[in-house]
Amino acid sequence: MSFMFEKVAVLGIGLIGSSLCHVMRQKGLAKTIVGHAKSEETRRVALEIGLVDSIYATASEAVQGADLVIMCVPVGACGSLAAEIGSYLMQGAILTDVGSVKGAIVRDCRPHVPNGVHFIPGHPIAGTEQSGPRSGFAELFENRWCILTPLEGGDPLATAKLESFWQACGSMTELMTADHHDLVLAITSHLPHLIAYTTVATASDLESVTDTEVIKYSASGFRDFTRIAASDPTMWRDVFLNNKDAVLEMLGRFTEELAVLQRAVRWGDGETLFNLFTRAREARRNIIAAGQDTAAPNFGRVPTKK
Amino acid sequence: MSFMFEKVAVLGIGLIGSSLCHVMRQKGLAKTIVGHAKSEETRRVALEIGLVDSIYATASEAVQGADLVIMCVPVGACGSLAAEIGSYLMQGAILTDVGSVKGAIVRDCRPHVPNGVHFIPGHPIAGTEQSGPRSGFAELFENRWCILTPLEGGDPLATAKLESFWQACGSMTELMTADHHDLVLAITSHLPHLIAYTTVATASDLESVTDTEVIKYSASGFRDFTRIAASDPTMWRDVFLNNKDAVLEMLGRFTEELAVLQRAVRWGDGETLFNLFTRAREARRNIIAAGQDTAAPNFGRVPTKK
Repeated sequence: MSFMFEKVAVLGIGLIGSSLCHVMRQKGLAKTIVGHAKSEETRRVALEIGLVDSIYATASEAVQGADLVIMCVPVGACGSLAAEIGSYLMQGAILTDVGSVKGAIVRDCRPHVPNGVHFIPGHPIAGTEQSGPRSGFAELFENRWCILTPLEGGDPLATAKLESFWQACGSMTELMTADHHDLVLAITSHLPHLIAYTTVATASDLESVTDTEVIKYSASGFRDFTRIAASDPTMWRDVFLNNKDAVLEMLGRFTEELAVLQRAVRWGDGETLFNLFTRAREARRNIIAAGQDTAAPNFGRVPTKK
Repeated sequence: MSFMFEKVAVLGIGLIGSSLCHVMRQKGLAKTIVGHAKSEETRRVALEIGLVDSIYATASEAVQGADLVIMCVPVGACGSLAAEIGSYLMQGAILTDVGSVKGAIVRDCRPHVPNGVHFIPGHPIAGTEQSGPRSGFAELFENRWCILTPLEGGDPLATAKLESFWQACGSMTELMTADHHDLVLAITSHLPHLIAYTTVATASDLESVTDTEVIKYSASGFRDFTRIAASDPTMWRDVFLNNKDAVLEMLGRFTEELAVLQRAVRWGDGETLFNLFTRAREARRNIIAAGQDTAAPNFGRVPTKK
């Protein structure tokens, strides 16, 4: 049996790392899968549920002889990880990551990547609000996009091989510059998360409405915001620290739009509200038509039992 | 067989109205269900799928002899509807509604309700982003709260009967004042919807990122916002026009919190971000513990097919 990769090293065994292990197993993409995790408990779980063939406390051990190395740690941890593994990487290996910011990854990692190693930053647009080695599943990347941001002058064959890998994991792939990626994700992901966090914070600091009331009546909209606000805090702190300019740009535009809506509410301008609400409906239709969400009411939530 | 109500008149056959018809049928809560809808097509569908025993183009016909009348129309339409039916209501009947604003409903409807009719405003905290007579289902109210805001001096027995009705529909019930309801819903529902609409509007007005890109990469957070932004535009216009003060109050607080987060992003204050993100996680846990959302990742969305 021939494998796409002989030895894949997954550095960091959280939601993305463990999902990659599952899908690589399921599709037979790697002869050997090795892992690295700082936490002893994570290493124990990774072996127990069969995510990896072997696991190491130090990343430099894990990457030796690997022809694909995937950094699955928070954006802020990638630079020091790259520094640690740089001189242990095999010639001809592909080094990639899965972080939600790409410019900062290039800035922090590139200096540590030796010549002869193909560094191709990547970002699978997939996830859930859960984290940890038990949260992964093989279908996570199915029908989702994975963006790669190859560096100028990089080897197109290595990029093509990494694209094939993600496609074999179930994804569709797209290439763009790191800067453009960071703008796109600022609006599709980082701004929504920041707004969700802000909404949850607003609700928890009211004198007039109790926390219990917010929870009881959350099915009227609020609960949708709490899902993305339940994502891993370290990961999200790093995203905002490392995509500052694009996030501030989108926040500025958001605040402008909010002022327009706020004014319409204050002055009772029903026409402005109605027109905007009608336009917003269209966005949902397009997302469903593109296969990026379910058309089932309430996301097809199964009703909770009494 | 004895029924809780002899004749229930459902005025407006949208998501809530049609769901009420389904659950009343399923649980045998009404001997006769009659409906009213302005649209001929809605009347045709309501009869075709058996929502009602008979349906009327004029509300005053529908309410005659009904011992329970439920107004299921947008908040802005309730006043004129009450004016139209007032003199046709049966003595001893209960008149209620399902609107997401209660102060304005009391203000607009009470003048038209004759003595001897029990007017008890209500609001089931349940819904989906869909609308129309085909969008309803019997389980919509299951394990959700229904808030009633009885008027001072109203008949406690009538209120108790309406509570029993909603409980028989699967809901838990709570009583509060109309003013307090409007504050609670401003934070749990109206603010989240306004923010979702604003986010969708921001995303659709960018020069740097195309609409196609926003749609393709929406699984990273944005798609969650589009669900509630896909709700009925008329209903939501009326909510904001009729709960102005509470919405502006919550918007002011939201803007303050957003300024704090924006400053933390600008100055790279990771500690503030991390602490706030950690707190937000807690809100999700509490909502799941209270049975108001599913614990399944991504709301248990079924993965979309290629």
